[in-house]
Amino acid sequence: MDAAVSPRDRAGRTVLERAIALARHSDSPEHYTRTLFTPAHRAAARQVAEWMRAAGMAVRVDAIGNVIGRYEAAEGAGSRAILLGSHFDSVRNGGKYDGVLGILVPIACAAELHARGERLAHAVEVIAFSDEEGARFQTSFLSSRALAGRFDPAVLARRDADGVSLEAAMREVGLDPAAVESARIDPAGVAAYVEVHIEQGPVLLREGLALGIVTTIAGGTRNTVRVRGEAGHAGTVPMAMRHDALAAAAEMVLAVEGRCAAGGSLVGTVGILHVKDGTGNVIPGDVELSVDIRAAEDAVREAAEHDVFEHFEAIARRRGVSLERTRTHHVHAVPCAPWLQDRLAESVRRAGVEPRRLPSGAGHDAMIMAEVCDVGMLFVRCGAGGVSHNPAETVTAEDCGLAVEALLDFLRRL
Amino acid sequence: MDAAVSPRDRAGRTVLERAIALARHSDSPEHYTRTLFTPAHRAAARQVAEWMRAAGMAVRVDAIGNVIGRYEAAEGAGSRAILLGSHFDSVRNGGKYDGVLGILVPIACAAELHARGERLAHAVEVIAFSDEEGARFQTSFLSSRALAGRFDPAVLARRDADGVSLEAAMREVGLDPAAVESARIDPAGVAAYVEVHIEQGPVLLREGLALGIVTTIAGGTRNTVRVRGEAGHAGTVPMAMRHDALAAAAEMVLAVEGRCAAGGSLVGTVGILHVKDGTGNVIPGDVELSVDIRAAEDAVREAAEHDVFEHFEAIARRRGVSLERTRTHHVHAVPCAPWLQDRLAESVRRAGVEPRRLPSGAGHDAMIMAEVCDVGMLFVRCGAGGVSHNPAETVTAEDCGLAVEALLDFLRRL
Repeated sequence: MDAAVSPRDRAGRTVLERAIALARHSDSPEHYTRTLFTPAHRAAARQVAEWMRAAGMAVRVDAIGNVIGRYEAAEGAGSRAILLGSHFDSVRNGGKYDGVLGILVPIACAAELHARGERLAHAVEVIAFSDEEGARFQTSFLSSRALAGRFDPAVLARRDADGVSLEAAMREVGLDPAAVESARIDPAGVAAYVEVHIEQGPVLLREGLALGIVTTIAGGTRNTVRVRGEAGHAGTVPMAMRHDALAAAAEMVLAVEGRCAAGGSLVGTVGILHVKDGTGNVIPGDVELSVDIRAAEDAVREAAEHDVFEHFEAIARRRGVSLERTRTHHVHAVPCAPWLQDRLAESVRRAGVEPRRLPSGAGHDAMIMAEVCDVGMLFVRCGAGGVSHNPAETVTAEDCGLAVEALLDFLRRL
Repeated sequence: MDAAVSPRDRAGRTVLERAIALARHSDSPEHYTRTLFTPAHRAAARQVAEWMRAAGMAVRVDAIGNVIGRYEAAEGAGSRAILLGSHFDSVRNGGKYDGVLGILVPIACAAELHARGERLAHAVEVIAFSDEEGARFQTSFLSSRALAGRFDPAVLARRDADGVSLEAAMREVGLDPAAVESARIDPAGVAAYVEVHIEQGPVLLREGLALGIVTTIAGGTRNTVRVRGEAGHAGTVPMAMRHDALAAAAEMVLAVEGRCAAGGSLVGTVGILHVKDGTGNVIPGDVELSVDIRAAEDAVREAAEHDVFEHFEAIARRRGVSLERTRTHHVHAVPCAPWLQDRLAESVRRAGVEPRRLPSGAGHDAMIMAEVCDVGMLFVRCGAGGVSHNPAETVTAEDCGLAVEALLDFLRRL
């Protein structure tokens, strides 16, 4: 061991190296993609469990595949627990730190306590959520929903791109789809939930700050919109006689962008646009797109959503195409508990970082956990211009070390 | 046999029934799609060969999988041939008459000659082209190009959606990819090429005419455009900092539509738009689209194409995304030979239909065959509002019967 390396730096390096090692468990050999219950996902779960055990934690896997490690309190099994966690699934072609930092930083804290034989007043439970992004079955916050007793059995029938249902995928990994309810946690045993997460935006980077304390998590909705026009031959149907579903969808993409450009925390994104049976010489007759709208204030988001879909209807009427809209996801904005914000700010300051409070534009498991207990979030600065959900996503070992130091201080002083 | 049914009506019914029967050989159980060298495509080829033999024709399959039936001339094997043909592949979820009418109407003519023991001054060769739409390998006019000696061996490396190369697909059906050159036909043995085709547009339907004579086949180009922006998290990247490849592509779709709305024969279509790794909560970073532009006058099309791609460049510059453009297809407008137009018009009139001359907005094998010999085209009225490349495409048995009568008259009087 290099004597010149401080415990903080050593912990930061370990977190960074583990994030990189974990990303090797990927569904694709070309880029980092890890989705629910694939072989890569199972391998990552086994690796996380191993690191938890090495940090002196008792490990269990719950009914939805979450890996949960418990570092027992000084007083033993009857004590309430501080829950610390985040997810280990990813979006397609994602970044290596999104989610996993909120697992690896807490494990590093437990490892430090374990190495010193130190026990706290509360147990520390680290929850590695199996599915938050929901890229495989389009199921956002699946795992935290199960913990909050908000699991919707209807999602079991959802199918991935290969036609495999979530139910079948669960059975394949040895989980009982009928037993998900048992993942529900008892709020009486929980003191709070704190999530460490990469910022996924440029604010801390611009301000030169390693850490930040989240005030509110933006609310968001996602809709799937199907546009049906009339397929036809690309050479023979005069432009004026067309009902081109893709041209209508293109106007809708720009309508989302235009309405959400008003500034503030409001953002709108069309991430999926699929032309059914798309061929170069056929006028598209059937197009599906996703519409994701978010804002820190629910009223701002709701007004934007209303305007966007009113605009969609006008486009459809003018072009003679039909619209079908399904809301697939909806979460209200969630405030972080002021007492947790204050405690986290204090520990951030003690780690030598000016405490900066900021909202989170991205959704997090903490939004769902807020139904069970008070929640707080600690952001770690995002490199590369704040890029996230992208292979260019980066953090530094130094920032990870500061996160471990601040979180450990927070846990000790609770 | 029903004594009340005229020979014309009987031939028309046979053509219609055979088109419907042939569409059962489909790559998909849900809709009619038949693409190069699939099992359905091979079954259709066998069926066409059987109908040719029943019509007294000698059948061969050439090096690119075209099925060619020859009804010998009165003078025997040394005589020149009138070539009649069209394709038996389809677009995805296509119409049952597009292409196959140009095979089944000529077979019905040969059958009529055969039944009467009648021989003509020219041999009649019916060519069932294996690939014109090119939906599987994105290879327009593959088969007629081979006949015209214009086959490009580079296309052998193209892959279908499952990663199978054209070369591998050829070997699988017992064809030698190195031997395609042998499909080339000798112009000295050819008198002319005439293609019967469903109009695929609304002109004849509106004017109450069963048949039409084509004056010019519109030229067309197809380009593939790749737009690369910057992927990012849908919740955290402010709208003003985005380089959304899909929003850029949406503007491009509308640019094509807007520029080609000038009227006349000019049409522009984006039939394919693919968001790579599209996920609801990720800003798209990589999008591919196709751009198909056609017009009866090359200068009109070229001006539109120039303006459209200049506009694309401006969109890309403004949005900070990159563009890559590949021209995948290009054909000049092709005039039909005046003498063939006149002969066809005469026979159409003798079948009791006022001869209407009109351009073709769609591309046809005749465009390629024009490099070998004079070409002519006979259009059959399209039902259902002129819809084509669509399951709603229809023709009537009566119109098919008139087409058989007019074509047979044309062949006899040549």
